[in-house]
Amino acid sequence: MFKINILAVGKNKDCWVDESITHYLKLLKKYADLSVIYIPDVRQSKNFSEKELRKAEAVLIENKFASDYRIALSDRGKSLNSFQFAAFLSDIMIKQGRCDFIIGGIFGLDDSILKQCACTLSFSPMTFSHQLIRPILLEQLYRGFSIISGGKYHK
Amino acid sequence: MFKINILAVGKNKDCWVDESITHYLKLLKKYADLSVIYIPDVRQSKNFSEKELRKAEAVLIENKFASDYRIALSDRGKSLNSFQFAAFLSDIMIKQGRCDFIIGGIFGLDDSILKQCACTLSFSPMTFSHQLIRPILLEQLYRGFSIISGGKYHK
Repeated sequence: MFKINILAVGKNKDCWVDESITHYLKLLKKYADLSVIYIPDVRQSKNFSEKELRKAEAVLIENKFASDYRIALSDRGKSLNSFQFAAFLSDIMIKQGRCDFIIGGIFGLDDSILKQCACTLSFSPMTFSHQLIRPILLEQLYRGFSIISGGKYHK
Repeated sequence: MFKINILAVGKNKDCWVDESITHYLKLLKKYADLSVIYIPDVRQSKNFSEKELRKAEAVLIENKFASDYRIALSDRGKSLNSFQFAAFLSDIMIKQGRCDFIIGGIFGLDDSILKQCACTLSFSPMTFSHQLIRPILLEQLYRGFSIISGGKYHK
């Protein structure tokens, strides 16, 4: 089964984020073996600048890499529509069989992480919070699998 | 105070959608007088085609127009980044003082609604569910007001 790991910096801040993730993970079960791996954020504990913080988080992220094929989410990334994302997903499923999606913390991802990723995707020209992007990614994965399998979800 | 009405077709399907909306409405209180107006979807009750359904929903939406300045959300709309959206919002706040954001049902909005809107915005080249777009719009409004007021939320 297609193994997808979502690496996310910082725990879910609110109940509804937890619940939305549970909701989509349940729907996605039939399509992939999906795990969400939470990486502690370091912002509360140290008096770091944004850059230092991203660097410190980068070390923690690297320790949790679960696949050799990694996709970063960043607003500097490539834009795809839902059909293109489905094709992208299908291609990884066939060629790699597993992948990591990486979502940064409040200040995004360090360049050292982006360099270790096969590609960087942007889900919108708008900036979305690092919390809200979690259900957004999951919904898009579900939509992608629905497109690939001819399901009803994507009209 | 800036009056914003969000007209959304179909009730919130899941608890986490309700809770995410409550979460952002609370945060937005200091910036605007915001209401979410739910418009019943007609899909369960009639055996309509997608087009007929959108037309039937359009009549219900028109009955709930609460402002003369209306903004439709559709993936055929104009893309803005978060700073451009903040400037857009600030302009409406100054010139209009009130506006409606309109979110369609599962099959989107009828052209007759788009024609009655001052503009149509797209939040992503990806298609997001008509449920998930609700917290996405609210988060973007909160981010927009934070940018306008120099708040900390948008870095």
